[in-house]
Amino acid sequence: MLLRIDHVGIACKSLEAAIERYETVFGLTVVSRETNSGQGVREAMLELPGGSSYVQLLEPLGPDTPVGKFLAKRGEGIHHVGYAVADVVAALEAIGGRDVRLIDSRPRHGSMGASIAFLHPKDLGGVLTELVQPAT
Amino acid sequence: MLLRIDHVGIACKSLEAAIERYETVFGLTVVSRETNSGQGVREAMLELPGGSSYVQLLEPLGPDTPVGKFLAKRGEGIHHVGYAVADVVAALEAIGGRDVRLIDSRPRHGSMGASIAFLHPKDLGGVLTELVQPAT
Repeated sequence: MLLRIDHVGIACKSLEAAIERYETVFGLTVVSRETNSGQGVREAMLELPGGSSYVQLLEPLGPDTPVGKFLAKRGEGIHHVGYAVADVVAALEAIGGRDVRLIDSRPRHGSMGASIAFLHPKDLGGVLTELVQPAT
Repeated sequence: MLLRIDHVGIACKSLEAAIERYETVFGLTVVSRETNSGQGVREAMLELPGGSSYVQLLEPLGPDTPVGKFLAKRGEGIHHVGYAVADVVAALEAIGGRDVRLIDSRPRHGSMGASIAFLHPKDLGGVLTELVQPAT
């Protein structure tokens, strides 16, 4: 069902400072920038050269957003992990039958045109887990 | 320098319970189990079928280990991210010259025969970051 690690989502106070850090320290390149008002974030995707995996940097649009609350509670750091799936609807249907609560019972719009859905960390050992069906 | 996301390291109270969860919910398979007394963990690597990326489950050997302290402070969840590199010695040398403190100035033994080194989260936006040169 899960194909690979698609990305790690990293919460940061300043998107620009975080981008500069990943560019300077690791030589990564931004391949996409988006503001996702539904999720309350400004974000950037930095591609790893091996292909098909990304560092996703997330700056909250305000303190009352999920990432804003995460920053207030835990500070900057890894916010979630995203796994690539071939069919997010089928994956949600299968996982929903396995006693894991779905934050999104239906896919929504994610980075770079992907269809995504989040699974509840309380049923996954504290790990906020995202399923990602990349755009074709 | 970074090639791909090699793994996410997930801190858990019970390795067996965590393995069962990842097998049952996501259909992943354990490909390696090790006890690393130097790092103070019992661990399992579960391979993602797309190849070359893993979920690493980490149970502390005791409360005074790094993962034990993490669990006490933050609870179960994502502990670190590991990126594959071709040459960990060369990567450490490059990164050490870019104002990032190295937890390991020389590589040490990691999972499945890899050579690994950790970088300090305080210089990387709260993200404990591991470099992984897989065994050949």
